[in-house]
Amino acid sequence: MRESDLLAHIYSRSADLSRRFPQVIAGPGHDCAVIASGKEQLLLKVDQLVQGLHFTPTTPIDLIARKAIARVISDIAAAGGSPLAALAAATLPPNYPHANELFDRMHTWADHFGTPLVGGDIATGTELVLGVTGIGRPHPSRGPVLRSGAQPGDGVYITGALGGSFDAATGLGKHLTFEPRLREARFLCDTLGSNLHAMMDISDGLGRDAGRLAKASSAAITIEEHRVPLNAGLTDWRRALADGEDYELLFAASGSVPAACPETKTKITRIGSVQSDGSGAWIIMRDGQRTDVSELGWDHGK
Amino acid sequence: MRESDLLAHIYSRSADLSRRFPQVIAGPGHDCAVIASGKEQLLLKVDQLVQGLHFTPTTPIDLIARKAIARVISDIAAAGGSPLAALAAATLPPNYPHANELFDRMHTWADHFGTPLVGGDIATGTELVLGVTGIGRPHPSRGPVLRSGAQPGDGVYITGALGGSFDAATGLGKHLTFEPRLREARFLCDTLGSNLHAMMDISDGLGRDAGRLAKASSAAITIEEHRVPLNAGLTDWRRALADGEDYELLFAASGSVPAACPETKTKITRIGSVQSDGSGAWIIMRDGQRTDVSELGWDHGK
Repeated sequence: MRESDLLAHIYSRSADLSRRFPQVIAGPGHDCAVIASGKEQLLLKVDQLVQGLHFTPTTPIDLIARKAIARVISDIAAAGGSPLAALAAATLPPNYPHANELFDRMHTWADHFGTPLVGGDIATGTELVLGVTGIGRPHPSRGPVLRSGAQPGDGVYITGALGGSFDAATGLGKHLTFEPRLREARFLCDTLGSNLHAMMDISDGLGRDAGRLAKASSAAITIEEHRVPLNAGLTDWRRALADGEDYELLFAASGSVPAACPETKTKITRIGSVQSDGSGAWIIMRDGQRTDVSELGWDHGK
Repeated sequence: MRESDLLAHIYSRSADLSRRFPQVIAGPGHDCAVIASGKEQLLLKVDQLVQGLHFTPTTPIDLIARKAIARVISDIAAAGGSPLAALAAATLPPNYPHANELFDRMHTWADHFGTPLVGGDIATGTELVLGVTGIGRPHPSRGPVLRSGAQPGDGVYITGALGGSFDAATGLGKHLTFEPRLREARFLCDTLGSNLHAMMDISDGLGRDAGRLAKASSAAITIEEHRVPLNAGLTDWRRALADGEDYELLFAASGSVPAACPETKTKITRIGSVQSDGSGAWIIMRDGQRTDVSELGWDHGK
């Protein structure tokens, strides 16, 4: 069974969670779940970093630790929130020599991102797996931003530029050193308010992730190839759609959207729009040809 | 490096978390971490279930799922709280044939324990590892119960009986089917209030876990051998101290403590007391001999 099929099964299994449990505001299928605790709302996310999939045996320990923490921070940002705390569950190979350094660096990066590591669990396994849970608070006025709110007529935007985050020669690259878009997300919530309809981070490639946003919103997304900003050195639009691990924000909004986040100078680019007709994420190429790109990119169980 | 040494390093690394992050009420070193989110307090716990360590290749899928959920519920109970939601991170072997059944059963047990599974992550690895994060709310009047509040003169108590939770012949037993002591913990918080000083669940054996409670409270605990209730069929007190995976509550309290939880009929037994002199957890045998038992039991990284 493909992981996307398994996830579809889990989503359908979870569809009535909010009806059965009043504390559930949003269950599986968004960058963060949202639950109510008394008068507070919380963002919750768990993500795993697996050797061989998300890093290689030669990746520096510091960058493994950074990525493990930064990935959940990116999801909290994508829900428009601020991190509050994190937990780390580690499966370590027997007699793993870097355990101390790894946990020290995870603590340091967690502190850096403002999300203290308040608990964890260690087990022994065959290979290194780091599972990090992030707990965050939604934006105080906009509230939690989900994947499901995109509306026909919305513009579709991304922060930054896409593609080439993984350097195949060295295993290094932006996938290890990206800056979670916390400040950009806060700026968007502050500025756009309720005009910010849906948001997620791009971890499995623009194609697949735009397909997820479209599906969650029961709409179609069209992306104009010539508008998609590529990272330096790239010319093929397929890299933006399929490389993945960009950790940029993808969002749908109505009204006027600023061209950059003033605090960080991160560019914000309109790449397409939301349609009511049909489904999926489509790219319109310079010659007018349309292709469904929602199956491009990674299928590793976002 | 032993896991207990690694944990000691992590605890010392985390000692000043509350000073640096005002939202941290209690960091690593308790059954749950405690954080503040606005006016609410939250209990947080992550725990992992690893094939070969916590279950065998022949353990029924339903019982693997149950144990994965019930273990974090037990920690929320041990902090005196009620579960709110859970997240599950799974590392599955390639082409694992039971994925659908496993997640269905995890959802069913999560529902059963009142802690909806609101999110998760799936990765592929060599062996099955289930990391479950539990989010709970502390008792509304008693507040979160930590390991660190035991005071000299307190009685030391356990719920239920200990030992023999793992049947070596079949791999089955109470370690798979225990009932997390949520109602007993609520009863203790309701009844004892601020006289309930410290609590934890017994997962690595009474000896080691009592040693942890003593250490967290900067005190010593003495346990009288003849008072320790053993499960049916057991006669050797060492089984209670070292078998582990009992998932009973161990607590320290002053004043009068009821002999059972009226709602569940679970017995509550005074097994010893807290001393100000010295450290560690000691058993006093019928012949008056004293032995430090705080290194007995499991060292798998509670």
